[in-house]
Amino acid sequence: MSKLAAGLGAVLLATIATAAMAAGRDRASTAGLTPDEAAAGHCAAWNTTNRADRDRLLERVFARDGAYSDPTPAYAAGRAALSDHIAKFQRRNPGGRFRCSAPQIHHGAMRVSWLFLKPDGTVDAEGTDFYELGQDGQIRRITGFFGPPPPIGPDR
Amino acid sequence: MSKLAAGLGAVLLATIATAAMAAGRDRASTAGLTPDEAAAGHCAAWNTTNRADRDRLLERVFARDGAYSDPTPAYAAGRAALSDHIAKFQRRNPGGRFRCSAPQIHHGAMRVSWLFLKPDGTVDAEGTDFYELGQDGQIRRITGFFGPPPPIGPDR
Repeated sequence: MSKLAAGLGAVLLATIATAAMAAGRDRASTAGLTPDEAAAGHCAAWNTTNRADRDRLLERVFARDGAYSDPTPAYAAGRAALSDHIAKFQRRNPGGRFRCSAPQIHHGAMRVSWLFLKPDGTVDAEGTDFYELGQDGQIRRITGFFGPPPPIGPDR
Repeated sequence: MSKLAAGLGAVLLATIATAAMAAGRDRASTAGLTPDEAAAGHCAAWNTTNRADRDRLLERVFARDGAYSDPTPAYAAGRAALSDHIAKFQRRNPGGRFRCSAPQIHHGAMRVSWLFLKPDGTVDAEGTDFYELGQDGQIRRITGFFGPPPPIGPDR
């Protein structure tokens, strides 16, 4: 191969890699993990009481050094800490279950609505999680908020 | 001053600095900028058509290299790009006005509800902005979402 052809080949490969990374921001093509799968996997993890099963779910969708926080004020640094936190939540809320929306996504970020149901199926709590995704589609950060979005007062 | 005293002084200063930085995550004490001021300042910037006035507002509340994105799919990298983007929005929506909620905040992140009103005062659009704050209280990133949080389908 001539030097020119090699150079063109390198440029072409770099272009393909850049395009794949850009696509990965929203479609997680590099890991075969879609935003919907990431959100559904995280939701399922909260409903999974078996530790090994839950860790398998989180291993697929949540970055090893990902972070989770909510206003309780829980803060879990890393996948294992999140699994610990979920276990603690489940012990305090036995028989409860989360239902989660499909994600809305742009620029590698997304939001997901959720309901937490009591064992009798009535709604115990609701909220919105804000996600940041890595280029491989895994969740890098979740910041949760409880209740509906804040109201806008008449004076504002 | 003895070496021991100097050493203790250094430890004390480091401790104070660390505490101030930790406080800054939620209270912006280092810049005297509160989360409410950051959110209100950003909202006011969208309502300010004079470029110099708007840039003064953004200079206080938005980091120079901060990022703004929304689903339009606008992406503004840096304070000046955000001011440009707001100018473009204002040209397309003359006489409109934003109203914004107080922020809900935890772990250096917050969400803010907003309404965009037409010149006649009727609601044209609504949404929620997710903010990330720096340790000085300035906005490092805003990720906007339009409409209410996504609905949770019966099959989920």
